[in-house]
Formats: sequence, C-alpha cells, structure tokens
Amino acid sequence: MTSQPASLSRRRLLVGSAGAMVSVSLLGMVPLARADEPKTLPDFVKWKDQSALIVHSANTMETQRGAIGSGVVTPSTHLFVRNNLPAPDGITDNPDAWEVTIEGVASPKTFTVADLKKMNVTSVASVLQCSGNGRAFFTHGPGGTQWATGAAGCVVWTGVPLSDVIKELGGNSEDARYITATGGETLPAGLDPKTLMVERSVPVQALDQVLLAWEMNDQALPLSHGGPLRFVVPGYFGVNNVKYVKNISFTKDQTDAKIQASGYRLRDVGVKGAPDQPSMWEMPVKSWITAPLEGAKTGRNMIYGVALGGVNDLEKIEVSVDGGKNWKQARFLGPDLGPFAWRPFVLGTDLPAGEHLIVSRATDVEGNTQPPERTPNERGYGNASWQDHGVTVSVS
Amino acid sequence: MTSQPASLSRRRLLVGSAGAMVSVSLLGMVPLARADEPKTLPDFVKWKDQSALIVHSANTMETQRGAIGSGVVTPSTHLFVRNNLPAPDGITDNPDAWEVTIEGVASPKTFTVADLKKMNVTSVASVLQCSGNGRAFFTHGPGGTQWATGAAGCVVWTGVPLSDVIKELGGNSEDARYITATGGETLPAGLDPKTLMVERSVPVQALDQVLLAWEMNDQALPLSHGGPLRFVVPGYFGVNNVKYVKNISFTKDQTDAKIQASGYRLRDVGVKGAPDQPSMWEMPVKSWITAPLEGAKTGRNMIYGVALGGVNDLEKIEVSVDGGKNWKQARFLGPDLGPFAWRPFVLGTDLPAGEHLIVSRATDVEGNTQPPERTPNERGYGNASWQDHGVTVSVS
Repeated sequence: MTSQPASLSRRRLLVGSAGAMVSVSLLGMVPLARADEPKTLPDFVKWKDQSALIVHSANTMETQRGAIGSGVVTPSTHLFVRNNLPAPDGITDNPDAWEVTIEGVASPKTFTVADLKKMNVTSVASVLQCSGNGRAFFTHGPGGTQWATGAAGCVVWTGVPLSDVIKELGGNSEDARYITATGGETLPAGLDPKTLMVERSVPVQALDQVLLAWEMNDQALPLSHGGPLRFVVPGYFGVNNVKYVKNISFTKDQTDAKIQASGYRLRDVGVKGAPDQPSMWEMPVKSWITAPLEGAKTGRNMIYGVALGGVNDLEKIEVSVDGGKNWKQARFLGPDLGPFAWRPFVLGTDLPAGEHLIVSRATDVEGNTQPPERTPNERGYGNASWQDHGVTVSVS
Repeated sequence: MTSQPASLSRRRLLVGSAGAMVSVSLLGMVPLARADEPKTLPDFVKWKDQSALIVHSANTMETQRGAIGSGVVTPSTHLFVRNNLPAPDGITDNPDAWEVTIEGVASPKTFTVADLKKMNVTSVASVLQCSGNGRAFFTHGPGGTQWATGAAGCVVWTGVPLSDVIKELGGNSEDARYITATGGETLPAGLDPKTLMVERSVPVQALDQVLLAWEMNDQALPLSHGGPLRFVVPGYFGVNNVKYVKNISFTKDQTDAKIQASGYRLRDVGVKGAPDQPSMWEMPVKSWITAPLEGAKTGRNMIYGVALGGVNDLEKIEVSVDGGKNWKQARFLGPDLGPFAWRPFVLGTDLPAGEHLIVSRATDVEGNTQPPERTPNERGYGNASWQDHGVTVSVS
C-alpha cells in the first residue's frame, strides 16, 4: 500500500463514512460509529462528498483524516459542518438582498450584500477549525461531538474587509473593546433568546483581519457554511466566525449571550463556564499526520500531514517516526497562502518492519510549538498535543 | 446587473456553451458557434462543467471568459482541453504502473509512477495556456481553433522535480542542450510517426522548473490533462507540457518531429514553419478582463480580470475604462501562488452612462509589459495585445 494521498480517494470509497479507517490506527480514544448516528447527509449538505465525511449528527460532520490530501485548500465538498442551530431556510435564494446592520460606529447603517460587493473585495485563505477539534483524544470524557482531526479545513474566503466598511461609516466608537456579531438564525419561540442565539464578541484588535465574506473557495457561500454572508475572523476558532451575520456592533463589553458568557470558555474539569475564563479566540499552532494511517511497506515512504500556525506564519514542521524520541524536519508542500492558512507537509523516509508511532510537531515564527500532552479542560477544547495526534502504523 | 464574478455561474447557465455572451462584447473578431460544432462533451471529459465551456471540437474546449471567477486556481471542471491526438484509452486505470524512461543521463532507467511518488514530491501553481490562445482576435484568418481568452487556466501540479530524478541517475550528459519529452499517444498505423507524434524539446535550462506531475488540483491527473504522468514546464506554453509522457531524453539537438521542427514556430504570415524560427516556449506577460462583460449599471463597479507573468513575477496591473487613454493601477486579489501562477485582479471604479472600452495591461518585475497591438504571424500564436483583450461594456 502506498502512502501517497492521491490513492486516498479509492481508500475512502472502501471504508465508507463510518470512520473505520481511523478507528484502528489512532493513538488514544477515537470516535466510533454508533448505531443511532445518521449515516446519510441531511438535505442542506447533500452536495457534499459523503465518502470524505464522518456523519456525527444532522448538524455535525467531520472530514475523514485521510481525505485531506496534499492540497493547500480543502474542497468545499470535504469541509466539516458544525451548526449550533438549524440553518435557516431559503436565505441563500437571493444572497445579494441579505442585510447586515453595523452599529457602534459614527454613522450606523444597514447594507445589503450587493452594497458590500461594490465597496471593496479581498480574498484570504484561513483555517476554519472547531474549538472541540481533537476532543476525541481526551480521556476524561468531555461531552459534545467527538471530533478527532477533521473539524478543520483550510478555505479561501472572499469578501470586503470590515475595516473598509467601518472607515466609510466614520470609524468605530472610541471606547469599543469588542466587535460583537449576531447570527441570523431563527430562534425557537418561548425560550430565552440569550440562551440560544449565536452572538459572539472578539477583541477589537481583530478588526485588522475581519472579513465579511460572501464567497468560499470561489463560489457563493453555501447555507451550511454561513451564506449569504459570514463574519470571518482569520486565525480564530470556528465559533467566532458567525454565520448569516445580521448585526455587527462595536461594544464596550462582550455580549451576555450564553454562547459567549459561559460557552466556549477554557476551564478545569468540573468547573462551570464563566466570563472571567479565557474565551476560545485565537487558535494555537497545531499539526497532524494524514498519511500513512494504517499500514505501509518497508523501505522508502512519504509521510504527509498538515500544519497551522493559528495567527502566525509557521517556522518549521518536524516529524518523528519513533514516537517523539528523534525528530526530522519535514518540508512544506506547495504555495504558502499566508499566516492564517495551513500548510501541507511531507517527509520522505525509510521505515523498517514493525510498529511505528508517527507524530508531527509544528513551530511558528514566534517560537510557539505544540505541547507533548493535552491540557485536560471541562469541554475538551483546543487540543494541540502532538502525542494525541500521532498515528501507529504497521510496516511490513 | 452586478459586475461581481459570483453571479457569473447564473449568467453562464443562461447563455449556455455557444459563446453567445462573448460574441456581443469583445473587441475584434470572435469565435462564433457554427452549426457543425459538437454541443455536448465527449466521453473523456464528461466530468467537466459544460456550462463553463465552449466546445469547439471533440478535442478542443475553451473556458467561457466569464467562468474564470475571482479565484486563484481554475477548477479542473472549468479547465480548457486541447489534445493533438485522441487520448489513449485505459491508461489511467492503474496510474501507478505507468512507465517513463529517462535517457541522456549517466545511468538511464525506467521508472513507474509508483517509483517516482516515493522519490520526492512538490506542488507548483502554473498557468497552462495554449500557444493559440487569443487567435480569434487576429484578422488575417489563421487556421486552427479560434480561441479567444479561454485556452488558459491556472492549476496546481503535484509531482517530482525532474532535477531530483536526474540527480539520482548521475546527472545529464554534459553536451545536452535540450530536454526532449515524448508522449504516449497511440499513433495511427501506416503514417510516418514523425509527422504525428507529440515530441517536444525545451532548453535544458528549464530543468530547474520541470515537474513530472501525477496530480492536478489535488486529484489524480485525469486522462484529458495527460494522466497518469505529465511533463510539466511551468511558464512554458501548453504544447511543451507533454501528456502521458513515456520518454524523457537529454539531447544535443531538438527533436525532428514535425510538432517541434516546423510546428509551433513564430513566423510572418505566409511563411512555412522551420527550425530556425522561434519556438513557442516561454509565455509572455498577459492579462484580460473577466467582468463585467456585457452591461453594467452607472455608478460604482468592480472590474475583474486575470494577469500572468509567464516565467516572471508580476509587478503591476493597470486598467483603463477609456480604451487606453487613462490608466489606473488595480489590486491583485488573494494569495500569490508564485511566478508561474496567474493573479486575479480587481479595480473598483465609477462608470458613467455610455459605452466603455475596458482594457487591462500587466507588467512583470523585469519591466516587460503587454503591447497595445498584436503581431500578425502565420499561425496566430502568442497574442498578448491589450487592445485585443478589451471588452466594450454598455453602462446605463
């Protein structure tokens, strides 16, 4: 069996979408298919490539670890899906008519997407990653979707820089410390909206990189990824990238919506979420092996993976085929799409017969590197442990 | 009507594949659909997006000018097709078994694609462009496919650098001045192979950038684009990128195959092809507008296009909305994929009512820029005229 990603499409077809391939090979706990899991794609993501996905639920689908390939951009058909609430119907039928209101600026205003498209346009490649990516490797059993590696992808967003919009509105209020974005979900009646609404605040410093995006991977933004318009914060965890954004406000304080006040907070196991705990904002440096995942032949092998620097450029990526005792520097593959993108990497190396624990460790230009071990936390967020992301490969 | 590329997919569906959209708007001669042209895709490219293509013949399909979008990479489904001979059947069924022989080196050797995949791997974004792209704008009526702008695309190739393979074989012969690559086409019996075979020579200096590619856009190289293995020379016109490559030889002289000796030679109108004329090797700097193509509303508009530097990085791209009297510098859009890639560009500008001739002019880092006019030549090759590539837009 070759270790080259080009062969993975065939392999994917053989293993289907139930995660059988990774379940035999990953170190640590893995997400196993349960009998009650939906096995087909729900209607709003029917256009996706099911053979590249693990369907966890009607709102959560993970990219197969072996389906990443060696490309710099994740095809939209392969990108994971994670919706906090059901996607609202019909809003992408006439995307140019979607409206977003900007407040906390000198001249508040409501724009249509058509207005924004004429204002300016830029494209940015960035990693979209769920805060809980890598949760499956925690051993204290945090609840939530048991993502392994596939709640992450690298895509190209096209839209208008929020800073250009703000400039046209006379600048934001001077005492603003946060940008608060509100999603356009339809909330169920009779419940406190604050407990359900998707409203997130990010530090105002992120304004430099925020994009109001109407395209992903050069196509109109699909409903499942937040179309017609998404608030995109390159380098920040997925939850901050508010879908179907309908309101953006420059605020002195963070929103008191539950998803911000107590949700997505990093805290010790057993502790309840609270506003004084770190919020899941900037992503840390991280990497994982994507091939080989099962077996390999003795002799020369090509080891593939992906690495991301979060908000920083990557400095280097190292690979160890003996579980971290000895490291070799691997090479990045293909063009560098900027600090927020991930970079595929490859190492050609000889593998003798036996079981090998293959791990990778990325370091960014500021010297931040992946820790060997995960830090247990209540919700299983932000796992960047290089040990957890290794694969055991049988070479014969 | 908005001038934003995201809306073009809808427009494409309206105009179909017969080139009706461009025929009303381009300056100069345009390819008109003829009654005898095939309107459906032949089997070997059935997987392509027909709505993005103009089908000229069973072996030649052009990308619609409006189908390029604003992305840095052209989707494989949208990429033009130009085959000199029918693609051989079945050779991509087991791509790893395809063999290529390397000669004119210290230790000649035959490799399978599986062998090459273990040797090294790199990815390079480059423009693939037919020598005759822009032929439709010549007025002296050169024969051959009447390509307008769409015999070009920017794709990512993945494979092994030829220089790595040569190193392993002890280096190439010292007196080699050319790299000669032979395609694996099945030649019709009873005819002189030299008149039909696809065998091209490029200067040995190109070795620095040659790739033996088994993937395009992160998927196994399709038959229609030269799979299982293609000889890729980034920065060189399409014909030099030999499909299904079966032999690579370091040679003192160029091949005497007709496609090299007299074909793809730049010469005056009425002159026969001969080996002493310039061969269609390196591509010149070039650009063209991709939106708007027909009409636009008065007021603020976004003008989109693509620009390539051939073998050099681009320095700047300028746009004129008055046929070249006044120029404004436009902005490149999205990540820079390197010197061989093209770059989408955009200019936001006000357009008053009336007819406007919108043109673009690219300049590379060595100061090479597009000429205003085409240089008439027998076969209609290498058209980079900025006048020819303009579009007349009605603004109301």
